[in-house]
Amino acid sequence: MAKILTKRAENYSQWYNDLVIKADLAENSAVRGSMVIKPYGYSIWEKMQAALDKMFKDTGHSNAYFPLFIPKSFFSKEASHVDGFAKECAVVTHYRLKNDETGKGIVVDPDARLEEELIVRPTSETVIWNTYKNWIQSYRDLPILVNQWSNVVRWEMRTRLFLRTSEFLWQEGHTAHATKQEALDETEQMINVYADFAENWMAMPVTKGYKSENERFAGAIDTYSIEALMQDGKALQSGTSHFLGQNFAKAFDVKFTDKNGKIDYVWATSWGVSTRLIGALIMAHSDDNGLVLPPKLAPIQVVIIPIYKGTEQLGAIAEKAETIKKKLQEKGISVKFDDRDTHKPGWKFAEYELKGVPVRIALGPRDIENNTLEIARRDTLKKEIISQDGIDLYISDLLNEIQQSIYQKALKFRNENTFKADSFEEFKKIMENKGGFVLAHWDGTSETEQKIKNETKATIRCIPFDSTEEEGKCIYSGKPSKRRVIFAKAY
Amino acid sequence: MAKILTKRAENYSQWYNDLVIKADLAENSAVRGSMVIKPYGYSIWEKMQAALDKMFKDTGHSNAYFPLFIPKSFFSKEASHVDGFAKECAVVTHYRLKNDETGKGIVVDPDARLEEELIVRPTSETVIWNTYKNWIQSYRDLPILVNQWSNVVRWEMRTRLFLRTSEFLWQEGHTAHATKQEALDETEQMINVYADFAENWMAMPVTKGYKSENERFAGAIDTYSIEALMQDGKALQSGTSHFLGQNFAKAFDVKFTDKNGKIDYVWATSWGVSTRLIGALIMAHSDDNGLVLPPKLAPIQVVIIPIYKGTEQLGAIAEKAETIKKKLQEKGISVKFDDRDTHKPGWKFAEYELKGVPVRIALGPRDIENNTLEIARRDTLKKEIISQDGIDLYISDLLNEIQQSIYQKALKFRNENTFKADSFEEFKKIMENKGGFVLAHWDGTSETEQKIKNETKATIRCIPFDSTEEEGKCIYSGKPSKRRVIFAKAY
Repeated sequence: MAKILTKRAENYSQWYNDLVIKADLAENSAVRGSMVIKPYGYSIWEKMQAALDKMFKDTGHSNAYFPLFIPKSFFSKEASHVDGFAKECAVVTHYRLKNDETGKGIVVDPDARLEEELIVRPTSETVIWNTYKNWIQSYRDLPILVNQWSNVVRWEMRTRLFLRTSEFLWQEGHTAHATKQEALDETEQMINVYADFAENWMAMPVTKGYKSENERFAGAIDTYSIEALMQDGKALQSGTSHFLGQNFAKAFDVKFTDKNGKIDYVWATSWGVSTRLIGALIMAHSDDNGLVLPPKLAPIQVVIIPIYKGTEQLGAIAEKAETIKKKLQEKGISVKFDDRDTHKPGWKFAEYELKGVPVRIALGPRDIENNTLEIARRDTLKKEIISQDGIDLYISDLLNEIQQSIYQKALKFRNENTFKADSFEEFKKIMENKGGFVLAHWDGTSETEQKIKNETKATIRCIPFDSTEEEGKCIYSGKPSKRRVIFAKAY
Repeated sequence: MAKILTKRAENYSQWYNDLVIKADLAENSAVRGSMVIKPYGYSIWEKMQAALDKMFKDTGHSNAYFPLFIPKSFFSKEASHVDGFAKECAVVTHYRLKNDETGKGIVVDPDARLEEELIVRPTSETVIWNTYKNWIQSYRDLPILVNQWSNVVRWEMRTRLFLRTSEFLWQEGHTAHATKQEALDETEQMINVYADFAENWMAMPVTKGYKSENERFAGAIDTYSIEALMQDGKALQSGTSHFLGQNFAKAFDVKFTDKNGKIDYVWATSWGVSTRLIGALIMAHSDDNGLVLPPKLAPIQVVIIPIYKGTEQLGAIAEKAETIKKKLQEKGISVKFDDRDTHKPGWKFAEYELKGVPVRIALGPRDIENNTLEIARRDTLKKEIISQDGIDLYISDLLNEIQQSIYQKALKFRNENTFKADSFEEFKKIMENKGGFVLAHWDGTSETEQKIKNETKATIRCIPFDSTEEEGKCIYSGKPSKRRVIFAKAY
């Protein structure tokens, strides 16, 4: 097998890179910092998109499309937004190339310089609120519940496939409301949608909570996030929902007349998830043999592999395989029958293990005689021989069981890797050894958070919505604290 | 009514602009040349995407994603491609902004100049073939059948919503094959897919044919296109499929070993349609009252409007409307019940006419008594009173009938506006008066085509696949010709 992976225990980071490449998910492109998402990786994204898009529409949102380019001056309008987003970005300065006069190829035409530079969107609040200004006059125009599926660019010096690339794909919701409460409700609704998706589709337990000021979105009053724990003990922020208050409405002068004829600024939210989720999915569940995909997001849920000698044997097996395939497809299960004669069964077994296909069916001549088949689960690697009768119901139940089982395994891992620390010594020891989520008291200041980060690399992932009130002392400053927050090293 | 449109006969171009804006399809953005696609317009695009995506997958293609940015040097590698695409384009030269030292906002950081400029993709052949180089070694790696849904940028000085904008959305298929014949078959297959979509989904008759050399894609050996006729007598190229030969394989050195161990360059195709199709859809069918949408692409297929006085009447009507809505939805029909009390029925009638909803149901107190309802077809504007019994089947059939009827109307229009011209005088007269498709003999030279264009603005739209051989003389040069080609003024 050429496709062997580095083991997680040896080098987790290398294991991840190996897996992304060898499972044909993505690769680095010739363009620094940009990736190519290969068909198999992209099909996972399509599954994610379909599920999320339905959830957005079920909660009343519509899709729209706004420009890729944003005039530079737009970024200066919201004071904190400019610091967060108008730094490392792609700047378009010219709109024409021409043949080099010395015959050496093509050069940028100096006469085609833009009057104002255009920024490739790192996020679209500015261009969208500049547009909403013309859409909103009265309360009758509200709420606006719009989402955009698009590409964005944030220049990155150190990139990792899916986790951090200069260009990535995402969705960004941008809503406008007549009241503060409605905007707050929307912010909460969408973090709940993300948590629902993470847990029920990605089989990945997440903690919902508030971001501390240091980690908040540039321009937000409050940022809610979902945080997941990866197998190496590091956290991965998997989705954020921002309550933007009236900041962008003020920056772009978006006012409305309410029911009583009073004029006020509009309230805003924004929320997004990205192709980073594919990175999270990989790191949450996969093992040293390759990907482990939850059935609900697996591009291929079942693969059937024939075990045969000679074309005569293949004929009978293929006939049976096609019957089974059809039965499963009628239950809405996606099935691939891999009858390629260019590869041996053992090669195929390893290949589909690497690619995380949840269920593998092997079908040989003895199975035809005995009305049986061999089933292997990708998550547990367990095999069993079962009867072909009622195979559709059996597989359907098995896929549900695998979905649950993967979630439970990840939940167990998170529980086993969530610790309480009551002193900074204890805190540092945990961070140096296993990592994980560390629940600790904090005095609520950015300064303390920054100092803890400098000494341990750990940051506050979130202040959980469901944290219980508890008297304590900040592990760093000793000042009083009312609740524990979650610290972790993070991707 | 504030939303009245300019009449087509008065000013077709103004009618189109009015309609796009007033039907809430799209608007110009603050970024020169870029549009905002509004939710209603975007939902038409989503319907188009879903249908096309299924057709691509049914013909064996997968989606993937390639970088937005292309290094400038890539464009110089394919000789004719550079002339066609590396001219009017957005050029990224820097990757950082910084605060202006004089405190006047943000400026481009001169220290963050890219070594090599990046071009925002105008089309992706170069970056994709640079990637395919690493994917292809042997015939076993072929064919590669990949499609990408993405945004592209071609700098435009004179823009029109949907028809010509600097940034637009599209799909681009890029396939790699072991033999010339296979690539030719793919090129033909995909133009057939586009024609199928145009005729059976958009209800828009199209002519399939070869492009003349002047109109060919930069870098293609042959370009096939589908051409539709708009109501103002101008043609609109609605989709193209390119046989690229080995041009890009040679430019990016993509070779493979065939079954016999022989090394050769790979054969290529590319094919695309864009949000331009929304412009075509509008111009092909709509009238002075607004959009006319074929039911298969209408975001809302049926709207139910209550006619009532007072809330008591509304109660009974709403109950009945919800029953009807549910029945229709069970047949897979998308229905909106508009019970807003902020607008009068007459206002709603005009609004949904403007937005092209194929079927309107009006439901009043007398209908409740008589078990009837009033149905209005958007395409013919005809109304009738029918029984509520069997309404689901009735509407389902009606939607099919409307789909057919819109197609037949457009086909009749095209037939009535397709002319033969046997002299240049005749040709010019037709072009000056009504326009339309003009079938004429041509001597096969670019020079003649260019001269005809200079004098009449008409170009060769295509050399139809199904043109019959016929001896004739070029209308311009008098030289011999074997078949007629289609001339038209074009969008």
